[in-house]
Amino acid sequence: MKRIEGGVCAAKGYRASGVHCGIRHNKIKRDIALICSDIPANAAAVYTTNLVKGAPLTVTKQHISNGVAQAIVCNSGNANTCNANGIELAERISEMLASELKIKAEDVVVASTGVIGQPLPIEPFERGIPQLAKELSAEGGDSAAEAILTTDTAKKEIAVEFTLGGKTCHLGGIAMGSGMIHPNMATMLVFLTTDAAISAEMLQKAISGDVKNTFNMLSVDGDTSTNDMAVILANGMAGNAPVTAEGEDFTTFMEALNTVTVALCRAIAADGEGATKLLECKVTGAKDEACAKKIAKSVICSSLVKSAMFGADANWGRVLCAIGYSGAEVDVWKVDVRFSSAKGEILVCKNGASVPFSEEKAKEILLESEIDILVDLGDGEACASAWGCDLTYDYVKINGDYRT
Amino acid sequence: MKRIEGGVCAAKGYRASGVHCGIRHNKIKRDIALICSDIPANAAAVYTTNLVKGAPLTVTKQHISNGVAQAIVCNSGNANTCNANGIELAERISEMLASELKIKAEDVVVASTGVIGQPLPIEPFERGIPQLAKELSAEGGDSAAEAILTTDTAKKEIAVEFTLGGKTCHLGGIAMGSGMIHPNMATMLVFLTTDAAISAEMLQKAISGDVKNTFNMLSVDGDTSTNDMAVILANGMAGNAPVTAEGEDFTTFMEALNTVTVALCRAIAADGEGATKLLECKVTGAKDEACAKKIAKSVICSSLVKSAMFGADANWGRVLCAIGYSGAEVDVWKVDVRFSSAKGEILVCKNGASVPFSEEKAKEILLESEIDILVDLGDGEACASAWGCDLTYDYVKINGDYRT
Repeated sequence: MKRIEGGVCAAKGYRASGVHCGIRHNKIKRDIALICSDIPANAAAVYTTNLVKGAPLTVTKQHISNGVAQAIVCNSGNANTCNANGIELAERISEMLASELKIKAEDVVVASTGVIGQPLPIEPFERGIPQLAKELSAEGGDSAAEAILTTDTAKKEIAVEFTLGGKTCHLGGIAMGSGMIHPNMATMLVFLTTDAAISAEMLQKAISGDVKNTFNMLSVDGDTSTNDMAVILANGMAGNAPVTAEGEDFTTFMEALNTVTVALCRAIAADGEGATKLLECKVTGAKDEACAKKIAKSVICSSLVKSAMFGADANWGRVLCAIGYSGAEVDVWKVDVRFSSAKGEILVCKNGASVPFSEEKAKEILLESEIDILVDLGDGEACASAWGCDLTYDYVKINGDYRT
Repeated sequence: MKRIEGGVCAAKGYRASGVHCGIRHNKIKRDIALICSDIPANAAAVYTTNLVKGAPLTVTKQHISNGVAQAIVCNSGNANTCNANGIELAERISEMLASELKIKAEDVVVASTGVIGQPLPIEPFERGIPQLAKELSAEGGDSAAEAILTTDTAKKEIAVEFTLGGKTCHLGGIAMGSGMIHPNMATMLVFLTTDAAISAEMLQKAISGDVKNTFNMLSVDGDTSTNDMAVILANGMAGNAPVTAEGEDFTTFMEALNTVTVALCRAIAADGEGATKLLECKVTGAKDEACAKKIAKSVICSSLVKSAMFGADANWGRVLCAIGYSGAEVDVWKVDVRFSSAKGEILVCKNGASVPFSEEKAKEILLESEIDILVDLGDGEACASAWGCDLTYDYVKINGDYRT
């Protein structure tokens, strides 16, 4: 497994573009992205469980139902959610793109992100879509990665190279996500492309299985978005013998996928709205995985833990508190807690009670920008990780006047 | 039902005091409180469901198991939680107080609030308890209300007068709570006193029933504390015929209790850490109460809704989003949302979609310090309220360096 450049265009047969079409008032930022496979690709996706769903999700779900897609179009600045004519608009966007690219409208994945409940004008799409088609290129991944961002401060893209049956394959992805992040059986907007040949069924199995340990273990602010979606396209252009069942090749593919999704999770958490630190809670010694997951997620979601991390305060009592209300059955008198970063590791709680530790050393560790909160339950072999970020003044600032 | 002065000393036969004993480094703030009934009283309580529990809760639960208590002692500054010798300390504190007051140690309710996991020295209690006993008076409710506070900026006390069987009765209470507030089948530290005669069994029924609609519908930051506890003492000194079963008197008593607990809920939410606004989400038109409660609490807990309220931004899409992920079954296309305050009321969402509204008027409404978020589900007759506050820079500031 090798990390490579190229993001969503790293795999063979994919081109992308990103332009400014005027959905966002900011006149410079690209606000619409296109990713396109040269040939129809197998496709799979997972979606938010929020009952309030963006109209694009309904349309995409229908388009992907036959396991095939060829292009992904995504705008930022407006979520096309809680709009009475939202589905009609999403269908119209698909048709405009299909006609421009000379592909089928039902092979278009359509996605939107931004403010909920504001009317979405069609004019920017009429301007933007021809331009997107014109600028499509194998070097366009960067522009697409930029165009899907909202309050994000950094592009999120990654790609890997791996081998299936002697053939070199690639898998890359881009993501947007900074606030309203607490995926539930789904994820943020994540678009993945691969040239590996894999059946639509196994592709769905791969992404559905993977998100349980990656995007579903990520939280910036506990708010599950209405527009979460992760889509993967597999166009088979690597020429490998198609993956149609579990086995060695599927395992390799899952590893490649996981490498990409974990990297995107970390990138989303690190760029959480207002965040100054990436937090990872690693739970070990759990009696089962469900227990480990509940605890990792409870710790990563605690506003008090997040605020303490912002202040570089080794307030481990709040970690214990979040373990206690996680809903997992634990013997709190067996729990050890450590904080760790590039500056070292420090034990702050042993068997659920305080141990003497150097506040100075703890501060040094917690002043770093990537912090691991290590929880050992001393009760078994299962483990899990969750990702999040600190809670800062800027989170409040960003969200106090997001619309204006 | 009449609101009266006197807080926890409003009822006959109760005295209280609050002094500084040195648990907190702040040399001025009172940090230990005593509430005492002249005679043994019937007692009932509810506790946090956090698996990590403060040692005082274990001791209090045991002491109250016979339905009788006479005194409540509570310190702030240290939660006596995650301390290996915590239970021993809580027992020792009960014994010291009992010996000072010449009552039984098993009639003492002991409570602590403050930092979790720091060693608790006994010396401050040795100094403070005799002083508390000496200063006990019918005018001491104020001092006790102050002594139990942590990051709170205001005392929380209230009392009411009501009639049972022709006899004038009183019920009053004090509360502490500002952060780590998301009670779950329990509450923050709340101490209630009444001179009504009511059996221990009915008293437990009253408080267990009441908290479901009051303290369990309150959230400042989604963190369920390790030390939550609500205790009520009823010494019977009003001379009414004891309430021993459901009926008119019990209903009157429940009304008095609810008046006090709702007022304390509102006071806690309004004084949430860093809060500038009290928020109440009132859900109507639900098909059942469980559905209404889930939605009210989901909206009040959303970091994005809370941040928008801080910024006086009528971002109703976030309200819809929180309804959608609440776990309640709703038809989102029937939902209306209004914002309301002393400056008026404004409809911002009709049938799950945007309606034109004056942003100027919305801003004027949302700049007030008490905001109602009104959600009508259009799907039935059930309703529920939840209380919370906005998320502000100061929440982060307070919790970024709480220990130091």
